[in-house]
Amino acid sequence: MDYLARQRRLTARLREIGSAALLVTHLPNIRYLCGFTGSAGVLLVTAGARGARLTFFTDGRYTQQAAEEVTGASLVIAKKSALLEACEAAVKARVKTLGFEAEQLQYVTFQHLSHAVKGKLKLKPTTGLVEQLRMIKDADEIEHIRAAVGLGSSLFQTALAAIRPGVAETAVAGELEFHARRAGAEKMSFDTIVASGSRSALPHGRASGQAIPDSGFIILDYGVILAGYCSDMTRTVHVGPVSDSHQRMYEAVKDAQLASIEAVRPGVEAAKVDQAGRDVLKKAGYDGYFIHSTGHGVGIEIHEQPRIAKGQTAPLEPGMVITIEPGIYIPDDGGVRIEDMVLVTATGHEVLTPTDKSLITL
Amino acid sequence: MDYLARQRRLTARLREIGSAALLVTHLPNIRYLCGFTGSAGVLLVTAGARGARLTFFTDGRYTQQAAEEVTGASLVIAKKSALLEACEAAVKARVKTLGFEAEQLQYVTFQHLSHAVKGKLKLKPTTGLVEQLRMIKDADEIEHIRAAVGLGSSLFQTALAAIRPGVAETAVAGELEFHARRAGAEKMSFDTIVASGSRSALPHGRASGQAIPDSGFIILDYGVILAGYCSDMTRTVHVGPVSDSHQRMYEAVKDAQLASIEAVRPGVEAAKVDQAGRDVLKKAGYDGYFIHSTGHGVGIEIHEQPRIAKGQTAPLEPGMVITIEPGIYIPDDGGVRIEDMVLVTATGHEVLTPTDKSLITL
Repeated sequence: MDYLARQRRLTARLREIGSAALLVTHLPNIRYLCGFTGSAGVLLVTAGARGARLTFFTDGRYTQQAAEEVTGASLVIAKKSALLEACEAAVKARVKTLGFEAEQLQYVTFQHLSHAVKGKLKLKPTTGLVEQLRMIKDADEIEHIRAAVGLGSSLFQTALAAIRPGVAETAVAGELEFHARRAGAEKMSFDTIVASGSRSALPHGRASGQAIPDSGFIILDYGVILAGYCSDMTRTVHVGPVSDSHQRMYEAVKDAQLASIEAVRPGVEAAKVDQAGRDVLKKAGYDGYFIHSTGHGVGIEIHEQPRIAKGQTAPLEPGMVITIEPGIYIPDDGGVRIEDMVLVTATGHEVLTPTDKSLITL
Repeated sequence: MDYLARQRRLTARLREIGSAALLVTHLPNIRYLCGFTGSAGVLLVTAGARGARLTFFTDGRYTQQAAEEVTGASLVIAKKSALLEACEAAVKARVKTLGFEAEQLQYVTFQHLSHAVKGKLKLKPTTGLVEQLRMIKDADEIEHIRAAVGLGSSLFQTALAAIRPGVAETAVAGELEFHARRAGAEKMSFDTIVASGSRSALPHGRASGQAIPDSGFIILDYGVILAGYCSDMTRTVHVGPVSDSHQRMYEAVKDAQLASIEAVRPGVEAAKVDQAGRDVLKKAGYDGYFIHSTGHGVGIEIHEQPRIAKGQTAPLEPGMVITIEPGIYIPDDGGVRIEDMVLVTATGHEVLTPTDKSLITL
């Protein structure tokens, strides 16, 4: 990973907005900027006239790990609080205004810090500075994401093989997760969703103890984290004979998903991609049954910028990796969702998820 | 679960501190108070003179789930923002000062809310109100925790069976996690730690792609979530012949762990429990190698109050469930940690984790 290039982009951005220093507390942002994968630490970035400088503060539990992992930043093992020592270092470096990640800092921590630096330093809320860099994936990241998506989709057959009426949803999820681990996944990128029968009408139906019924839809929505990058995919399959109404539901979602994918290209507003699928569902008579947004960015985190939703007027850019995942949910009946990961390319898009989308009946 | 009793304890506490209303945003607190297990929603608690009232606000994705799960609170499906609508409801209920969970609300969200309720409502930071109730487990919770601990320890032999030189740490973790799932676990309570050879000197050595070496310690630290409650245990085993220095390390940690457990009883300061083990390690010549605190509460979350650490002067109380997990970490050599979950009883303590602590060599 080219951490130094990322650090340069961040310090350039800080200079652009006239901010001399930023306290990075969000761990995925820290990982992105300097490679640290542990669970405690803060990164102080100063971008003053005397040149940019990064210092990573962590505690004694991470001495060895930080030394092995951190690139492009000097290391401090804090005696008491990494956060306070980072602020003290900023004061010492004559920083007057220290930006902090307002979306990633609890109010109580802000209070503590404010108190500690009173009269010495001004804390200034910032939002999305590193997240905006992370929106555009670099070549290394796209390679990592491809590998994660590849692993994720290779597990789909494993999941299918585990589905039988009477088997618990958790057993299907367990089978999937076991094979993900065996293939080297660090973990799943979110709680695996296996939602069968009427539970498929729950957009977030985490695998439960419920047994797969004799008939109905089953939504499988899962992802892996491989070498730090997430995958995310959804397929809906059917057990038992497919009624006409279920067939229509499935085809409508598939058509909506393809319409949204078709709309993905640089310069198009994210909201237009959302609308493209929504129009198809409305025309098919499912207005009001698609009760969430169309998608989200994916990378180090499972939910990143940009959001593919109503009101999102920012244009898509090459290097973004997003999900396209419309759905229909009919209470007490069932639901359908189909999701791929899609790369925005210089000229249009590339669907990263290779898995077929024809309705599978088991 | 007796949600109504918990709600009564909270509203009594709110009246005690002269607070008429609390906005609960931390999901584990919401689950504790009303049973909702989904991933989005806020709970408004008003404890005014006209009686206590709870209202749960969520979004359209959770209509069905909230109706099924929520107990003792009325339900609102928010059109735009659950958080904003909860604040509006507080204004409508003539709340003047609305407490919020300062440890659980991002600074940026605080800013948005402040702006939205300006002139109508004062937002007041609170800390640990629900967490303090959650510290003392009720009978239902202790039963759930026993079940989770029982499942966790039953998996230890599975993990041992998977350990062989040359096998990747992630494969051992995968085996463990697969069997946890098969036994009904919702998921692991944190990233499984399998830290072998010199990696055992990392207190947080998540399972990596590294192969188990021919000799050295292996730390296994893992837990399951079963029906919403966490388990947490650590055992350290050894592959290959055990040197005298490794044998001494192991015995010192075991003695320290037993000494800390022995100190657990109602009325004793948490810091004394930490100190009891620390003294043993110091006497054995390992001063400076135990680089974290002794333990933490466990329940709906893997890390809860109380902390068992230096400076923690609050006395232990019956119904608390804590971990006792001292360790020694010697860089480039290896580490040992032994961890049990312990219930504080009316007269002393009960070790919940049944797994033996003699050094196992493989």
